[in-house]
Order: sequence, then structure tokens, then C-alpha cells
Amino acid sequence: MQFTSEQRLDDGVLEREFTLGEIPGVLWTSGSEPAPLILIGHNGGLYKREPRLVARARHYAAQYGFAAAAIDAPGHGDRPRSAADEQARADLRRALQAGEPVDEILDAFILPLVEKAVPEWRTTLDALLALPEIDGPVGYNGMTATGIRLALVEPRVSAAVFFGQGFVPGTLREEARQVTLPLQFLMQWDDEGMERQPTLDMFDAFGSKEKTLHANLGGHAGTPWFEVDDGARFFARHLK
Amino acid sequence: MQFTSEQRLDDGVLEREFTLGEIPGVLWTSGSEPAPLILIGHNGGLYKREPRLVARARHYAAQYGFAAAAIDAPGHGDRPRSAADEQARADLRRALQAGEPVDEILDAFILPLVEKAVPEWRTTLDALLALPEIDGPVGYNGMTATGIRLALVEPRVSAAVFFGQGFVPGTLREEARQVTLPLQFLMQWDDEGMERQPTLDMFDAFGSKEKTLHANLGGHAGTPWFEVDDGARFFARHLK
Repeated sequence: MQFTSEQRLDDGVLEREFTLGEIPGVLWTSGSEPAPLILIGHNGGLYKREPRLVARARHYAAQYGFAAAAIDAPGHGDRPRSAADEQARADLRRALQAGEPVDEILDAFILPLVEKAVPEWRTTLDALLALPEIDGPVGYNGMTATGIRLALVEPRVSAAVFFGQGFVPGTLREEARQVTLPLQFLMQWDDEGMERQPTLDMFDAFGSKEKTLHANLGGHAGTPWFEVDDGARFFARHLK
Repeated sequence: MQFTSEQRLDDGVLEREFTLGEIPGVLWTSGSEPAPLILIGHNGGLYKREPRLVARARHYAAQYGFAAAAIDAPGHGDRPRSAADEQARADLRRALQAGEPVDEILDAFILPLVEKAVPEWRTTLDALLALPEIDGPVGYNGMTATGIRLALVEPRVSAAVFFGQGFVPGTLREEARQVTLPLQFLMQWDDEGMERQPTLDMFDAFGSKEKTLHANLGGHAGTPWFEVDDGARFFARHLK
């Protein structure tokens, strides 16, 4: 793991970019005590420096003393896109514009993406947990599809906040039944691109004994800011 | 308003019983500064000293500095039951035991109850807001049926946490569309006596621009304790 930049931000948070093999990432920390870590997964099509993701990461670090980290998934952000990535994105754009169903395209795109992203998260976790500024249990905050597989294969992740509005391939929906970690599941009540029932069914599917659905008014990108605090307190309850 | 008892509890909270005409109530306060008030409505069949209600009220006061108050609804707790109350309770018990539908019985029972309880809450509010230890906006935390009507007619109530699992007569379900105050709506995902869809529809019906559904696993009486903190923080955001 190589740190490639370092910046002290005005909220006192130390922001460092790193690379780990092919994986580019960012780490946000504050304070001098070793802190529990929250992995922040970006949503599909976005990247590790998406402004709302960065605001969330800084808030976790500045207000709650967590360490927070984000990486670019394969084909996202600073990473090269394969011909297959480009093809899938083009297919998706075309289908959305034509108002055609996109489930098959997403299924063919998202499952391989998750299968590449999860081992990278685990490699990143190995490297981050070796740092003296990080210690203790780990949380995951991000899209559901990646989170399901990560929760299933990575015992060091012990609590998760999922952004429930997003396509989850059938294989992963099935795997969710075996997921047992405590979770908070965010839903947007008026998502433009998604009916309510599949999202409610997704929440229902998790095998966790402690799981809470937080549903807020508004469209896909309208999650209210107070949910960042609710998520941080959920992590504080389970990671500290 | 007459205070009839006064006790300093081990968490530092001052607990006082009062009567206001026919209405018996309890007030919990802490600290010396005037505090925003939370009205706590008991659920159907329960009363102002139900242990979980008292725990919630004391937590609001001890941990968050709110004043909290509960009163017995007509026919509940310390108050006499009318022949009609007794009849409705007997009908309800019989129908539940026989596994018959209870909607008509509840409708005939709950709407008149709400219509008696809401003016009493307003009278109580007048008296409590005249006390020097209470100041500022008011929140309501309790059953949805009473809360809808109270929110609609009482402009001093400016935020509400509703316990969403409970029968709401059709008249009040309609009125919910005119309710616009910020609200947090608690749902138990596995309620023994209630399907999910009517509760989701109830949440959907409110006219509020800011409303959040918190759905937790477990049966009717299984709301997890952390929701008390979530509710207190919601009130802190809106009342302070």
C-alpha cells in the first residue's frame, strides 16, 4: 500500500490517497487513537470521490472518530474500463432511453463486478488493518449487491448500512438469506426507477436478527443528510 | 392543574403526578432550564404508567433534557370505564378469541376515544405550557390514531413519532393526508395481529414532506430500545 497524497482538511480530517496494486483508494482519519474502520462502497457508475460519499466519510471521521475508506471498483473512477464494461454501459444507456427492461443487462454486468470488487475490498482490508491508526471491528456502508457478498465471505465486517435502492442480481438476493450481521437498510420511498415492493422484499430477505429499514420520502438520490448521523450511531453501537 | 405527588428518581428525573379536572397525568422533568415538551400517548388498553412508557419518558428527560408528560385516556388507567367502554372491550375480546374480524368493533371504539382524548391533550398542553419549567415547541410520541387528529387540530405540536402498529379508523386515515408535520413512523415487521401492507399504506398516507419509516424485526411489542434514542434525536432536531 502506497500513500500518494496527503492533505489535512479544514474539519481536521486527514485525507490520504493510496494505491494498492491496481486499486486506487482514499483513507480519511482523525484523532490519534486507533479507530474502527468503515468501508464506503460507491454506487454503480460512481467513484471514490463522489461528493456525497466524501461528505459522509469526512463526517464519520470528524464527528464520530471513525476511519473511513473508499476504493474505485473495477471499471470505475480512475480505473481502466474493459471492452465488456463499455459494452454493458452502452447497452444499459440504450435500454434506459428506449424504456426497455434492464434486468438482464444489469444481471450480466453487476454479478461479475461484485465478484471482482469483493476480493479487492478484502485485500484493501488486509492493508488498512495493518495500519496503526486503524483497529477494531469493521463496518460496510454502500450498495447492497457488493455488501451481501462481502458480508458473507468476510467475517471481519460486523455491521452494515446498505443503500437499498439498486439492482441486486438474483444470485445475491438468495445469498442475503445467509447474511446475519446487524444492518440498517436505507430505502427511498419515491425512487424514479424502482418499485417499492422489490426493495421491501430485499430488506425482508436478510437473515439478520437485527435489521432496521429506514425509508425516506424522495427520489433515488434524495437520501436526507440526517441518515448519515443515524448510520454513524448505528456503527457506533456495533463497532465501539 | 394540581400536583398530587413528587419524587426525585435515581436518574435525577423529577416525577410528578397531577390531576387536571378529570384527567390524571404524570410529568417528568430534569435540569433547571425551561425544556421542550414531549407528550407521550399510551397505546390502546394501556395507561400512563405502563413500564416501557415510563422508561421512555425518563430517558427523554434524563438523557436529552426534554420534559415528558403522559395522561390516562378516557376509560384507561385510573379513569372510570363507561358501560360502552366495557361493552366494546368485551366485544373485542370475544371477537379476538373467536378469530373474527375486529375492524368494525375497533372503528366503533377508537374514533370516539380519539375524539374525547384529543381535547384533553389540548387542555393538558395549556396547563403544562404555563409551567416555568416548560417552554418551546411540542412533540407527540404515541399511537397513530390519536396523533393524526392531534397533529391536525393542534398547531403547537410540531413533530411526532408514531407507533404505526395499531388500528386506525378510516376517517383518521383520510385525515392523515392533511397532516404535514415532520414525522418518524415506527413499524414492527412481524406484528402478530397486522399485515404489513396496511401499515405501509398508513405511512404512505401522511402529507408530511419529511417522514421516515423505521421498520424493525419482531412482533407487536418488540420495538427495540435504540428506537427511543432515534426518536429523541429526531425530536432534538425539530424541537431544539
